[in-house]
Formats: sequence, C-alpha cells, structure tokens
Amino acid sequence: MNERAKSIDLGPLPELIGYVLRRAQLAVFQDFFASFAPFDIRPAQFSVLTIIERNPGLTQTRVAEALGIKRTNFVGMLDELEKRGLAERRQARDKRSYALYLTADGVALMRKLRPVLKAHESRMITRVGEEGRDRLVALLTEIVDGRARNVRAVRDGKASRALRPGSAET
Amino acid sequence: MNERAKSIDLGPLPELIGYVLRRAQLAVFQDFFASFAPFDIRPAQFSVLTIIERNPGLTQTRVAEALGIKRTNFVGMLDELEKRGLAERRQARDKRSYALYLTADGVALMRKLRPVLKAHESRMITRVGEEGRDRLVALLTEIVDGRARNVRAVRDGKASRALRPGSAET
Repeated sequence: MNERAKSIDLGPLPELIGYVLRRAQLAVFQDFFASFAPFDIRPAQFSVLTIIERNPGLTQTRVAEALGIKRTNFVGMLDELEKRGLAERRQARDKRSYALYLTADGVALMRKLRPVLKAHESRMITRVGEEGRDRLVALLTEIVDGRARNVRAVRDGKASRALRPGSAET
Repeated sequence: MNERAKSIDLGPLPELIGYVLRRAQLAVFQDFFASFAPFDIRPAQFSVLTIIERNPGLTQTRVAEALGIKRTNFVGMLDELEKRGLAERRQARDKRSYALYLTADGVALMRKLRPVLKAHESRMITRVGEEGRDRLVALLTEIVDGRARNVRAVRDGKASRALRPGSAET
C-alpha cells in the first residue's frame, strides 16, 4: 500500500475475516511471485506440480478437486505446464479421464525449487515469529475445517443427493 | 475437501503459510458466495462497492490500488457494475481518468447487503471464536505489514544473513 492509498476510507473491510485473509494471502503470494519469478512458477502451479510429484498418475479431476481449482481454470494451467514440458497427461485406465505425471524436467525443476520455497517460507515466518506461525496455521485450519463441518452437515441433511460424488455424470 | 481428496498426499503444502492462507481464504469466500448469490455479488465486487460508497469520486486507479486489484481485471469488474446500474464512471477533473460513484440502485443494494454481511461474518467468527478472530486478524495484519517488520528485523540484526538485502553484493 502506498501513501495515496492510506488516505482511503476502507469502511468495515479491515475487520472482516475474508478481507484480511485475502490481503494477507496476496501479501504472501507477492513474496512468492518475486522468489519464483526466475523459474516462472506461480503459487497454483507450484501446488499442482507438488500434488503430481507426490501422487503420480492421479487424475486431472482429483488434482483439481484436492486444490479447490475450478475445472476450466485447471485445464488451462495443465495445458501450460504440458507445453513447458514440466508435466504430461496420459490416458487414465478408465479412458474417460487423464492421469498426470511430471516429466524428467518437471522433477528436476521441483528439486531446484526446494531451497527457493524454504527461503520464502522463512521470510513469512519472520513476519509473525515461530509461535505466531503455529497459531496462525492452527486458526486457519479451524477456518477450513469449519467449512468442512458445514459441508458434512449439509450432506447429511437435505442436500445429500446433489452432493453425492459422480451423481452428476452417471 | 471430500472423502476422495483426503487420501491425496499434499506433501509440504498444509504447513506452508501461503497454502493454508489460500485454502482458508477460499473457504471463507465460499460462504460469502453462497450468502451473496441471491444478489449476484462476489467478494471483490463487494469490496469495490464499499470503497466507492465510502469514497465517492475516487478515481478508478486509486480504488484498484487500494484493493490490490490489477488494472485490467478492475476495468472488467467496473464494466459489469456499470452495466448492472450499480456504479458509474464520470470524467475526473483532470480529464485523464474516471471518478467513480454509486448509483441510487447501488446505494440501495449496499443497504440490503449489510445484514447479509453481518450473518456471513458471524458464521466465520463461530469457526474460531471471538478471541480466535481477534488473534487471527492481528496475525494476518502482521503478515500484511510484514515488509516493514522485515526491514526492522534486518536493521536490528535479527534476520538471518539470507534475508539481509544486498548481502550478496557486500
């Protein structure tokens, strides 16, 4: 935020959990962007590459689901990673979807990114301290799990039919 | 996250501040989406409408800056709000930019959204408790203000050598 921005009345925004979360996320991503720019890797790409590295052969749909990325956005991301020779799609066993793998270049890149990630994370921890980090991660996990509780409650109630996996396709 | 997603190995992601922040932000936004869907208002649109409401006549550039929204994305957002008759651009005094205002419909909508926002925020607070919320907002604010904090840490010699700006050159 610059000097001019400071004089703007933000109203209730700075006390809203969603707004402050979003600002903090953007601040952390800004450091990530700067750190990973030499490798041309954005946070979502890093997450996708990590999931594929850890779970070779996982389908496109499940990787997207695991990261909460919309299917249409995910297809574009994968196209890019594939074009850059970092990941590849192979026809999955059920022939209806694609299984994802890192290429040798993808594996090599992930190895190079490890120290970059460590340095980025160290800078973020410096901002709140080790204890602050632990508390922050715990609180954020409660926020995420709170949502899971709500989804379960909905699934166990009226909306169960709509949420059953595969119900839309089959 | 659903049952199938749970079996996926996320590697280091769940302990990375940026990743957990992003997941929490998405979880909170999901509740926001559901709450505000009847009004067809997304979080970024709500922030933009709030800033315009609180600062009538502010230029397009400054609103975008205040919210950390990229200029190209912001133009599209404004086009939509204008098309829907909620906000309007007027030529700014310096003739090189646009000043933004809510329309009467925009003002009326913001009034209707107030209880919706309050209910959404109450649900989010329920997930971490009042004290947890205060701690969370404080920690997130430290993350946002982190740049200044890092600079102080470096000055006081508390940061590791890797964090010292220019240490590679000197």
